[in-house]
Amino acid sequence: MRLTALLPVRSCLLLVVVSVCVQQVHGVWPLPQQLHQSADRGCLSPQRFSFTYGRDSAAQTGCSVLDAAFKRYFSIIFPDFTKGSVINDKIFILGWSNPLTYNLSVSEGQAVLRSVTVWGALRGLESFSQLVYQDDYGSYFINKTEIVDFPRFAFRGLLLDTSRHYLPLHAILKTLDAMAYSKFNVFHWHIVDDPSFPYQSRTFPDLSNKGAFHPFTHIYTQSDVMRVIEHARMRGIRVVPEFDSPGHTQSWGKGQPGLLTPCYKGGVPSGSFGPVDPTIDTTYKFMESLLKEVKFVFPDSYVHLGGDEVSFACWQSNPNVRKFMEKMGFGKDFTKLESFYMESIMNMTAALNRTSIVWQDVFDYHERIPQDTVLEIWKGEKYQAELSRMTQAGHRVLLSAPWYINHISYGQDWRNSYAVQPQNFSGTEEQKKLVIGGEVAMWGEYVDATNLTPRLWPRACAAAERLWSNEEKTLNADLAFPRLEEFRCELLRRGIQAEPLFVGHCKHEYDGL
Amino acid sequence: MRLTALLPVRSCLLLVVVSVCVQQVHGVWPLPQQLHQSADRGCLSPQRFSFTYGRDSAAQTGCSVLDAAFKRYFSIIFPDFTKGSVINDKIFILGWSNPLTYNLSVSEGQAVLRSVTVWGALRGLESFSQLVYQDDYGSYFINKTEIVDFPRFAFRGLLLDTSRHYLPLHAILKTLDAMAYSKFNVFHWHIVDDPSFPYQSRTFPDLSNKGAFHPFTHIYTQSDVMRVIEHARMRGIRVVPEFDSPGHTQSWGKGQPGLLTPCYKGGVPSGSFGPVDPTIDTTYKFMESLLKEVKFVFPDSYVHLGGDEVSFACWQSNPNVRKFMEKMGFGKDFTKLESFYMESIMNMTAALNRTSIVWQDVFDYHERIPQDTVLEIWKGEKYQAELSRMTQAGHRVLLSAPWYINHISYGQDWRNSYAVQPQNFSGTEEQKKLVIGGEVAMWGEYVDATNLTPRLWPRACAAAERLWSNEEKTLNADLAFPRLEEFRCELLRRGIQAEPLFVGHCKHEYDGL
Repeated sequence: MRLTALLPVRSCLLLVVVSVCVQQVHGVWPLPQQLHQSADRGCLSPQRFSFTYGRDSAAQTGCSVLDAAFKRYFSIIFPDFTKGSVINDKIFILGWSNPLTYNLSVSEGQAVLRSVTVWGALRGLESFSQLVYQDDYGSYFINKTEIVDFPRFAFRGLLLDTSRHYLPLHAILKTLDAMAYSKFNVFHWHIVDDPSFPYQSRTFPDLSNKGAFHPFTHIYTQSDVMRVIEHARMRGIRVVPEFDSPGHTQSWGKGQPGLLTPCYKGGVPSGSFGPVDPTIDTTYKFMESLLKEVKFVFPDSYVHLGGDEVSFACWQSNPNVRKFMEKMGFGKDFTKLESFYMESIMNMTAALNRTSIVWQDVFDYHERIPQDTVLEIWKGEKYQAELSRMTQAGHRVLLSAPWYINHISYGQDWRNSYAVQPQNFSGTEEQKKLVIGGEVAMWGEYVDATNLTPRLWPRACAAAERLWSNEEKTLNADLAFPRLEEFRCELLRRGIQAEPLFVGHCKHEYDGL
Repeated sequence: MRLTALLPVRSCLLLVVVSVCVQQVHGVWPLPQQLHQSADRGCLSPQRFSFTYGRDSAAQTGCSVLDAAFKRYFSIIFPDFTKGSVINDKIFILGWSNPLTYNLSVSEGQAVLRSVTVWGALRGLESFSQLVYQDDYGSYFINKTEIVDFPRFAFRGLLLDTSRHYLPLHAILKTLDAMAYSKFNVFHWHIVDDPSFPYQSRTFPDLSNKGAFHPFTHIYTQSDVMRVIEHARMRGIRVVPEFDSPGHTQSWGKGQPGLLTPCYKGGVPSGSFGPVDPTIDTTYKFMESLLKEVKFVFPDSYVHLGGDEVSFACWQSNPNVRKFMEKMGFGKDFTKLESFYMESIMNMTAALNRTSIVWQDVFDYHERIPQDTVLEIWKGEKYQAELSRMTQAGHRVLLSAPWYINHISYGQDWRNSYAVQPQNFSGTEEQKKLVIGGEVAMWGEYVDATNLTPRLWPRACAAAERLWSNEEKTLNADLAFPRLEEFRCELLRRGIQAEPLFVGHCKHEYDGL
């Protein structure tokens, strides 16, 4: 993981002062791989509690990610207190083979968190924060607990669509907070699409000037994007931007004349435009400049190139495109033209030292796809067969189809996540390993800042658990229900406007109206 | 309408200063019965704008409902301004046969609003506020307009369920604001039910002490209830409380031992309880005291008595109930026992000078129902046949079945409202007139303060239009779509977290996160 490379911390450790008292077990969401809790519990004093780096830890004060996490989690654990004094205690060192594993050991007077990376440590801090609870008198407690934990899948993504509706910056930041609580680690930012182009490009400012819903109120400035990336990074979340082409680009055309294919009707241009014009040099020059900027602005090693739902009608109507097809020997097969375009874009991306992610269409219709390209499945029907074919061809795969949670229905539709088995398809063990994870997708046709949060949470938490936890231990939605109810109340306590699972109430209700 | 009787204002009138300029037509939601708009428009100056009572108007300064409405609507119309100076102008008097009709005439330099009642005047003010718009330079305009308007149905209700989840006071008040914008006029407060009893009774404080989710944070005090009623009254909305019995009363039993029927298993009490015990005197004494308090606290002439979904299993298991059945000659027909109970409750209500509303079950299973009882249809299947039977029997009817908008689905489900024709059943013209209106129901299984507002709005607006407007003019959801989109943006501008209808944006987006 590239984020690891950014901060090469090999080990770190924290401890907290607790003193032993009595009983009550509190859950962790998503379910840790190994969790042993005892009825013995210790009291926590917000006044005397501290996070401390182990003496031999590679990370020490000055490790920006963990320093910030300590501050954040102190407030989350003790919402009534603003600071605690530091008390030193014993020190431990560790070494793990898996860089994302963490080990959390809560015993008398202290808790020890071990991880090779800060990213693992962040997940452990999250689990620790969920273990702390208050009794009826407001005292803080934590039970003796042993956790060994690591993610089932490395890629646990959530897609937001900021083109069909603009989402204000604080809605995105709040989503990142909630993602960290559920241990999501990738924010797939579907930043532009047909309806609007809110990304303010430094190279092509007219794209948002003319393609955004509004050139000032409905855009993401460079500084906005940096804030999102930094907010995400501090929470162990990667930001993968998607610049979808050659389809889904109507808004691009407004600020970049000549980019889209002019459609023809009755032998003359109709005035409307189709996908990006793949037959002219200027298109590739533009895409190269744009992708160079994207590489500069978004540090992540992945770039999502889209490639889905390209309609051929407009290409077919255009005489220049038809001439180009003839010249290239594509006959009447427009998938070859699409293939030609996507291959160029994927090669550009590779030359920029970035790994491409593309929607499944690119695999379905194209012959040559660079081997390291990640394929994402979005079509609901027969995704098992698609998983089989893609991994057979040796590609890494992301599964999103069963987690299109913009599709709402009445009742407890989060239960559907518990029936999803991303590795349940016909294939070898090697093929199964090529499924690197999945994504919850919140497409924006019917979603904006008014309803985003309650539609996402806690419904997305169910997918988060299935992507993180052991599949065998989390097959039963009925068993998950009371744990998810508790976690939803915890989300409310943390200020996330998460909707209810069913009749009832929380100790800390949502008060943000 | 009882509210009219409270404030016997026979006529009132307002006018505003405008000066003529140019063009753009702005809609009114719900569609007025008669609306004529001209391309001529007048500029409005927030500095010089005023609401004024006509010289011969029965209402004058001191009319609390309209004084408050003037203040409210000034801020709604001119959100950037806090006050305007008063300028007098010409005066008109009126007389209408329908007390709820209003007439709004916007011409050069003034607008005249005529209505027999303050309630009609409130609707007219709402329409007026929707007619004002700003051009690209921020100047305020209104087109020359003539409106004659009145509601199709007298009863346009919205049900909130505060038992399955507690709704904080400000969520209810905000809902009342939005109801007034859509010209709803009845808040059906389903205040208690099985899961919790949040109403803090002065007579029986243990009902909420023991039956609420929490005896302090999850209750409505007498003062809370008064605030709701007054907030509603000022907006022309009646508050009809529902105290549903004999079923749906599990939470009542906690604070009122002896009220519910003890269920038996194997000849001994099982420890669980069923519906209210209809066989003992103490039940009726309790209900009479409670209903007396309800009459005292809720001024509306209607009280909803529930009567739905009574399960007979517990009654059947109880030897005392069986003995009572025998003594009364009910045989094994428990509908007769239910009938006996409901009749007593309805008679009590009548003796308190209140009109009962009951759910359709009471009509379906019972023989004698006081003629003035209003029946409410909630079962989705074959509601046309039910409408026919009920009106045949001479009862007034409310239709709620097609407007259970807690049932969500993906996409534009508000369109369903446009297919609902409450008077399209087999029956005479006299029968059709007995349909006095309908109710949108937002049951609380999956709804609390986190998601209430975006689930309600703008979906409920569609029902509001069908209950207010001429049916023939509002049969087409496609025609309603752009108008509803505009109205939804207006709701956002007024601070209502209304979700989007489809892809796009508003000039004033929701900013309440």
